[in-house]
Amino acid sequence: AAATAADENQYSDDATWILTSAFIIFTMQSGFGLLESGTVSPKNEVNIMVKNASDVLYGGLAYWMFGYAFSFGESPWSNAFCGLGQFFYTYAFSFGESPWSNAFCGLGQFFVDAEEAKMGWVFSKFFFQMSFATTATTIVSGAMAERTKLQAYMAFCVLNTLVFCFPSHWAWDSKGWLNKLGYVDVGGAGPVHLLGGVCSLVATLILGPRHGRWDRDEAPPMGSPTNALLGMFMLWWGWLGFNCGSTFGITGGKWKLAARSAVSTITASMGGGIVAVVLSYVTKNQKFDISYLINGILGALVGVTGICALAHPWEGLVIGAVGSFLSCVGTEMMVKLRIDDPVGCFPVHGLCSVWAILAVGIFGHVDALEGISRYDGLLKGGGFYLLGVQALGAVTFISWACAMSFILLKGIDKIIGLRVSLEEELIGADICEHGVGSIDDNSPPEFNEATGK
Amino acid sequence: AAATAADENQYSDDATWILTSAFIIFTMQSGFGLLESGTVSPKNEVNIMVKNASDVLYGGLAYWMFGYAFSFGESPWSNAFCGLGQFFYTYAFSFGESPWSNAFCGLGQFFVDAEEAKMGWVFSKFFFQMSFATTATTIVSGAMAERTKLQAYMAFCVLNTLVFCFPSHWAWDSKGWLNKLGYVDVGGAGPVHLLGGVCSLVATLILGPRHGRWDRDEAPPMGSPTNALLGMFMLWWGWLGFNCGSTFGITGGKWKLAARSAVSTITASMGGGIVAVVLSYVTKNQKFDISYLINGILGALVGVTGICALAHPWEGLVIGAVGSFLSCVGTEMMVKLRIDDPVGCFPVHGLCSVWAILAVGIFGHVDALEGISRYDGLLKGGGFYLLGVQALGAVTFISWACAMSFILLKGIDKIIGLRVSLEEELIGADICEHGVGSIDDNSPPEFNEATGK
Amino acid sequence: AAATAADENQYSDDATWILTSAFIIFTMQSGFGLLESGTVSPKNEVNIMVKNASDVLYGGLAYWMFGYAFSFGESPWSNAFCGLGQFFYTYAFSFGESPWSNAFCGLGQFFVDAEEAKMGWVFSKFFFQMSFATTATTIVSGAMAERTKLQAYMAFCVLNTLVFCFPSHWAWDSKGWLNKLGYVDVGGAGPVHLLGGVCSLVATLILGPRHGRWDRDEAPPMGSPTNALLGMFMLWWGWLGFNCGSTFGITGGKWKLAARSAVSTITASMGGGIVAVVLSYVTKNQKFDISYLINGILGALVGVTGICALAHPWEGLVIGAVGSFLSCVGTEMMVKLRIDDPVGCFPVHGLCSVWAILAVGIFGHVDALEGISRYDGLLKGGGFYLLGVQALGAVTFISWACAMSFILLKGIDKIIGLRVSLEEELIGADICEHGVGSIDDNSPPEFNEATGK
Repeated sequence: AAATAADENQYSDDATWILTSAFIIFTMQSGFGLLESGTVSPKNEVNIMVKNASDVLYGGLAYWMFGYAFSFGESPWSNAFCGLGQFFYTYAFSFGESPWSNAFCGLGQFFVDAEEAKMGWVFSKFFFQMSFATTATTIVSGAMAERTKLQAYMAFCVLNTLVFCFPSHWAWDSKGWLNKLGYVDVGGAGPVHLLGGVCSLVATLILGPRHGRWDRDEAPPMGSPTNALLGMFMLWWGWLGFNCGSTFGITGGKWKLAARSAVSTITASMGGGIVAVVLSYVTKNQKFDISYLINGILGALVGVTGICALAHPWEGLVIGAVGSFLSCVGTEMMVKLRIDDPVGCFPVHGLCSVWAILAVGIFGHVDALEGISRYDGLLKGGGFYLLGVQALGAVTFISWACAMSFILLKGIDKIIGLRVSLEEELIGADICEHGVGSIDDNSPPEFNEATGK
Repeated sequence: AAATAADENQYSDDATWILTSAFIIFTMQSGFGLLESGTVSPKNEVNIMVKNASDVLYGGLAYWMFGYAFSFGESPWSNAFCGLGQFFYTYAFSFGESPWSNAFCGLGQFFVDAEEAKMGWVFSKFFFQMSFATTATTIVSGAMAERTKLQAYMAFCVLNTLVFCFPSHWAWDSKGWLNKLGYVDVGGAGPVHLLGGVCSLVATLILGPRHGRWDRDEAPPMGSPTNALLGMFMLWWGWLGFNCGSTFGITGGKWKLAARSAVSTITASMGGGIVAVVLSYVTKNQKFDISYLINGILGALVGVTGICALAHPWEGLVIGAVGSFLSCVGTEMMVKLRIDDPVGCFPVHGLCSVWAILAVGIFGHVDALEGISRYDGLLKGGGFYLLGVQALGAVTFISWACAMSFILLKGIDKIIGLRVSLEEELIGADICEHGVGSIDDNSPPEFNEATGK
Repeated sequence: AAATAADENQYSDDATWILTSAFIIFTMQSGFGLLESGTVSPKNEVNIMVKNASDVLYGGLAYWMFGYAFSFGESPWSNAFCGLGQFFYTYAFSFGESPWSNAFCGLGQFFVDAEEAKMGWVFSKFFFQMSFATTATTIVSGAMAERTKLQAYMAFCVLNTLVFCFPSHWAWDSKGWLNKLGYVDVGGAGPVHLLGGVCSLVATLILGPRHGRWDRDEAPPMGSPTNALLGMFMLWWGWLGFNCGSTFGITGGKWKLAARSAVSTITASMGGGIVAVVLSYVTKNQKFDISYLINGILGALVGVTGICALAHPWEGLVIGAVGSFLSCVGTEMMVKLRIDDPVGCFPVHGLCSVWAILAVGIFGHVDALEGISRYDGLLKGGGFYLLGVQALGAVTFISWACAMSFILLKGIDKIIGLRVSLEEELIGADICEHGVGSIDDNSPPEFNEATGK
């Protein structure tokens, strides 16, 4: 707590980097919103943007209320399973500055807050972690697109924080049990993408396919491929902030790791994009499929997220190429299995993040600069230990996400109801939930049939 | 002037933060443009983007020529009412480096410039303040949408700098009279948003409603709700740079205040968004109105702008919630009062900024880190002094903005004419002023009537 | 190599600035994509976004494989003509950490990589330079729009790196021959914009005009002026990162130069935008042409790119105004000359960058802070030496770009074929290459004619 001037200076430089990175990460919300909005049919393009806003509104609130407490709270009671500090943080009692503060303390204790001496670091870390938490929720919105009640989705945003906050404690907090075993996950392949991806799969299985989706094999046309591509571009550059910010500062050797993150992230996207283009050209009758390109690049970016600060450029390229392959082939598999995931959330975030976690066990190495990894991976002569720990992490995250999201979504389904009525689905959420858009432009012919009766 | 190495280092770190923040703030121009473009009818969506570009072109030029001089100019003549230094800045005489510089000095004196030893700080501060100044003008473009001549708007961009630059001197310059009284306004609730909001009201009253606007109560449909929401997203993240950059650096305690700004800004938006969603659900027949969401989030962000670096997270939440309420209810009031403000500039920026200014007097407290506030607010045991000063500031800004914008807009109306002809309004500015877009797609049925005669 | 703690600290601060700038520069890819997508006809709007993604994918890969090596490679063999170091960088041999690394070294030697002690600086510089390299390629995509095969364009992205990487060695590497003569080019007017502009001209001449383009004088209508303007906005703010990042750090006097870059860049855009508005008003029948506005602002930004860190604000304004004039008049000249450059790449990037390079010779001056320029320009009493060196640079770049791009594009034309068939051109690349969009919405009436036979 009693920091020297040098410490203060270091904190200041690191906090600035973290804040700047978090600003960039928040722009990814625009990217996810636009990508999903451009991918779904026009009758739902506004609704999905609102859902992306809900991620920040409700998910952010929940993360502030209890998410951060469970993830990084510091107290005598915080343990290997969850943090417990900020959750019972006694700011209001100890440092309350107003005569009214007592009236709020019953509430205030549960909210992240900090006195001035500590607030720079607490708030920077909280703000950065919140940008991660809301991203994890945003991922799921795509899988639930075009058929989920907005109220139900809002409830999910709050509750999904419970899914996210415990695994981030295990992986990232110094007391977390996976962290103690040596688990490495620089940019959140596990706590962000794998959780998001598995929740997406569970959600789409519970919801069932969109009406008429499996009447034919090919995906419904994108509402606005241009918007989808612009969204992809935004995510691409945002990912640089995501992965580089994950070094959590620039002092000491952290700036070197951030620079390596930037390069491995961009080479991964190059490897991924090129694999996607080739795959599409070969399998899609010499066409360059937009979904392949988008899912390939994003899958590659997910793939490198776990190891970014440790990966050499060529390793990034290879990891990205494999991620893209998994993402594109996985999307086709979902169609074969008749699982309707409108924007490919599970293949992109779920499959590729398993690869991302395992890739650390394969390509990772002892980090002499900041101790990001304490073990060598398989290819660096470390044997199977790190790979085993990473695999254990992946299995844990998958199990946790399956169980938790199943319970939460079933609960929401019981209480609020997850799925809109068939009529509302055919008309589209833009008209039904927001009163915007016109029926004539957007609705498919079957709409008249459904409502005409 | 003769700075030590330590000073230089501090300036360098702070200037870098200010520059980076200003880069982010400039992206808000994209956000305002897109938000307004998506909100107006399609026949004016290009024109409003051009108006947003004009804000930077003409407003920026004016701010460079005389705005900064009146705001922050340093000279023996600068006083409590206005700065006067850079306006008569003798760069060209004193430091001219070329044989030609004399030919330009009659001009050069009025332009912001600096010799190399001082330029780092002067240019950073100027660039940051310019990003604020152009934002203040941009706000008004929405209120004048769909019926204002582009030439008239361009003239307004230049002249509106006169409205902005004096209040920013009063509030922010160390010689400003409000500043001396202890007025606190971290992110520009007064000089940016209140001025912009009041000018908006005056402008829309002088212009009168859009043709046929009050034939029915409900607002005309948004041209592109997706674009409007994307614009809102861009403003959301841009606001983080706006409020965090307002600490004007990261050295000393400033990085801690910046971190608190980030958190209180995001909690404010959460409070605001949730209030807007609930309000819409309750009052709009269980629909989630897009305007409510946008105006609620933006109103909340305006609401926290004045106090951001001093507000605890939960205070941000409360302040944002109130801001959102004022914004949404204010928008309905404008409809009741038959004042046509196409994108809700007055309720969002005008009403909420009054709240923002008063909120400092309620929740503010003495700032031990950087002296941002020298007084405690009402709830922190400081009594009514700070609240009184803040209220005085608000009243002053409102009076100034009313008087100045009335004079300027009436003057422009006399000389250039503010409003386009009825025929041009019905056809739309995209075709009339830019020759883009087609008549068939965009014009309402009444167009044929109006031109067919 | 053995850096002291102070050096390390300086590297760290500078690298952070470079990385942050590079993040901003990459957002310009979104801007270019959207600007081009909004300018071309709707039947090609998706395809041009994919081409902009290809710039990063293929151009980035090539820059990593051999581009950086030729530009900045350090080795006993690097010379005045090209760098040769990283190209034969012996990372894999010397520092390989895994038992497998030998298997990759035949490959690895050609890829940019670095050991941990050096990687912070190498990767930051590489990442920044890559953002420049991919921008240079992106410029050309606009000139080739609406009639170029995607496969051919992808091949061009790889090969165009050869055009870019040598001139950037001449201009920027300490061993480069132009650099040794005193050539000054802060933000890459020559190696980025002039090369891009000249390649654009060569490409459009080889490709020939779009079918039916010269049946009438006026340009085909923009597909989405709103998107084009949003793209312009994105480029505008991205350019700030581009020019400010070009100081390559913030330590020493670099932060002062960065601040001056920010101001001169924004004043240039103001001068350019206003000239474009006036030109359009005067010559276009009192209309405010969107292309004029876009090309004027971008031309102004190109114009100030070479001198940004050295230009006083008013010099920026003047340089931008001239750039805008060249850009707008140049666009009209292209029409007169019946050269079909769909988004005006040559006038904006080619003509204005010649002006940008010469402007350094006119307005430039000895830089006491960081030695950016060692000579004074014409107006600063330095006589014609600097202007002569700059002119030599411009002539060299033009000759090089003409010769290289002619050879590369003719080669691609021979092997892959540059131009799509007439039928594909009439249908549009969105359907033909990506299978998105519908024929009815987009195709001109002549389509039925062409395919009906």
